[in-house]
Amino acid sequence: MQELRKNIITREWVIIAKDRGKRPDDFCKIQDKEPKSREEIIKSCPFCPGNEGMINDEILVLKDTNSANYAGWSIKAVQNKYPALLNNIEFKKSSEGIYYIFAGAGKHEVIIESPDHFTDIPFMPPEHVKNLISVYYQRYSALMTEKQLKHIVIFRNHGPSAGTSLLHPHSQLIATPVIPKEVFLDSEGSELYYEYEEACPYCKIIEFEDQSGDRIVCENDSFITINPFFSRFSYETWILPRRHNASFSQINLKETEDLSKILQETLLRLYNCLKDPSYNLTLHSIMAPEWQSKSYHWHFQIIPRLTTPAGFELGTGMYINTTAPEDAAKYLASAQ
Amino acid sequence: MQELRKNIITREWVIIAKDRGKRPDDFCKIQDKEPKSREEIIKSCPFCPGNEGMINDEILVLKDTNSANYAGWSIKAVQNKYPALLNNIEFKKSSEGIYYIFAGAGKHEVIIESPDHFTDIPFMPPEHVKNLISVYYQRYSALMTEKQLKHIVIFRNHGPSAGTSLLHPHSQLIATPVIPKEVFLDSEGSELYYEYEEACPYCKIIEFEDQSGDRIVCENDSFITINPFFSRFSYETWILPRRHNASFSQINLKETEDLSKILQETLLRLYNCLKDPSYNLTLHSIMAPEWQSKSYHWHFQIIPRLTTPAGFELGTGMYINTTAPEDAAKYLASAQ
Repeated sequence: MQELRKNIITREWVIIAKDRGKRPDDFCKIQDKEPKSREEIIKSCPFCPGNEGMINDEILVLKDTNSANYAGWSIKAVQNKYPALLNNIEFKKSSEGIYYIFAGAGKHEVIIESPDHFTDIPFMPPEHVKNLISVYYQRYSALMTEKQLKHIVIFRNHGPSAGTSLLHPHSQLIATPVIPKEVFLDSEGSELYYEYEEACPYCKIIEFEDQSGDRIVCENDSFITINPFFSRFSYETWILPRRHNASFSQINLKETEDLSKILQETLLRLYNCLKDPSYNLTLHSIMAPEWQSKSYHWHFQIIPRLTTPAGFELGTGMYINTTAPEDAAKYLASAQ
Repeated sequence: MQELRKNIITREWVIIAKDRGKRPDDFCKIQDKEPKSREEIIKSCPFCPGNEGMINDEILVLKDTNSANYAGWSIKAVQNKYPALLNNIEFKKSSEGIYYIFAGAGKHEVIIESPDHFTDIPFMPPEHVKNLISVYYQRYSALMTEKQLKHIVIFRNHGPSAGTSLLHPHSQLIATPVIPKEVFLDSEGSELYYEYEEACPYCKIIEFEDQSGDRIVCENDSFITINPFFSRFSYETWILPRRHNASFSQINLKETEDLSKILQETLLRLYNCLKDPSYNLTLHSIMAPEWQSKSYHWHFQIIPRLTTPAGFELGTGMYINTTAPEDAAKYLASAQ
């Protein structure tokens, strides 16, 4: 049974998903390689058309009546078959001696981005990527009204070094009954910045980067993609909306279209520059009632998985980045 | 040139080590495999005897006059040839527009644990491991008096998934001119706990785990090894001194001996249980003047690298652990 346990020192919560527990030997096994032929791949992939029996309940389906798409759907949100948090249990606190526990209640959804196993975001039709952003928006908005959820994160693991187990293009959504540590620190940090500087730090960054130009990868009317001045990882890349808003739930139609364009362009530049690197893409956004915050600013972060954080990083939370963000931006901006 | 850059939102510092910068293609190259024969390995390893010309200046050398050890030394601390922070530059702050920069001044040392390339800690003579702990102590104490250093971390990356580039048994020491994020959070969190509970949280954990017994891996007079109740990672393992002390610099002779024993036993149990897993070992300890803290408690953390943190973890700082700490402790305690 899943549960949340609290670190009594730092007050951070950890999800213990015991159901997925393994015996020690399971960690030593070499994983099966993806079968070789195109047909074998499709046959064994739970997200490919024809294998609907392998996946859990559908939550949302975008139909596609285009006769060339025999699947009949273009994007789907489904329940995760191996959820980190459970949909159907009571939100409740308990304790064990000096420790605190929260039932592992929450949401864990999978967004299957396309029936096509082999075409990733940079190469999807632009209209399709716009629909994907719209599905992100619909699921985010639907869950934002559930009172017992405190945070929603949408993320995408791409490639073997990014912790993905399935190669079919997909995103995930996890909604938690507590505020995760980094979200709390980002949100608290931006509030403090506002108190001192009378401005949202993200708005200040956008303004400064626009002037400087040294760390811009690409941009359009509504968004700017940069390698942040204080990047923790080589080629860490942020996509920021120019209009101040704390919550992704407040995105408008023009921004939805511009986001789909800049997401596709940013991922294509990473693909070309770094030869299809593994990466994690994560939505950073806060929910109601804080969505009216003047200091927080929703955005996407992309972390290419080019190097392995080691003892120093894990032990201190301080990162060593071997690529100057200015160099990363120069290479990405010139990689068409 | 190395520099520290501050995240203006979270106030965390990042080390940008541009000297080690790579072109995008460098991330795509497949790394050379370690040469096959024992002789070839020794010949190309900068830490093996005979290759002293490959490494930087020696800081400390434990001599060994045992005639069976032709190297003449048993443990060495040397300057890191590719330092994350520089030894010989001025501590100074600057800014770039809205951002703050600190010169990349600090220490980055390598502790070569033995002349023997092939024998890791679990299989070293017990006396040798005691000498290693003593070298840790000597380097920690020597740097603790340098006023401009704010934190010292000693760590050890073992195995291919732990971010190590050299297989010869070695540890590293990095001293930073700022307090790293996690160190600040741990120390602040333990202070708050003390304010509410009138006790060090680590002392409370040791007391509770001793009573419960559910998460003990092994123990001796001075130390206890547990899988913490709120483990973020599968088989996350902590070695805690029973005597309250905030700083490793206050270790006594009996504790040095007992630490060497429990470190060796803990690493042997991990080796046997998980078939020589990759792991990061990190010292958590604070420097003067805070070393008299009643709330912080020095210890070692071992993070086996069995799974890959993905978008959820990187985006939220919240971890999903698929092994209940109670199960991990049961397996480790029975793995002789």
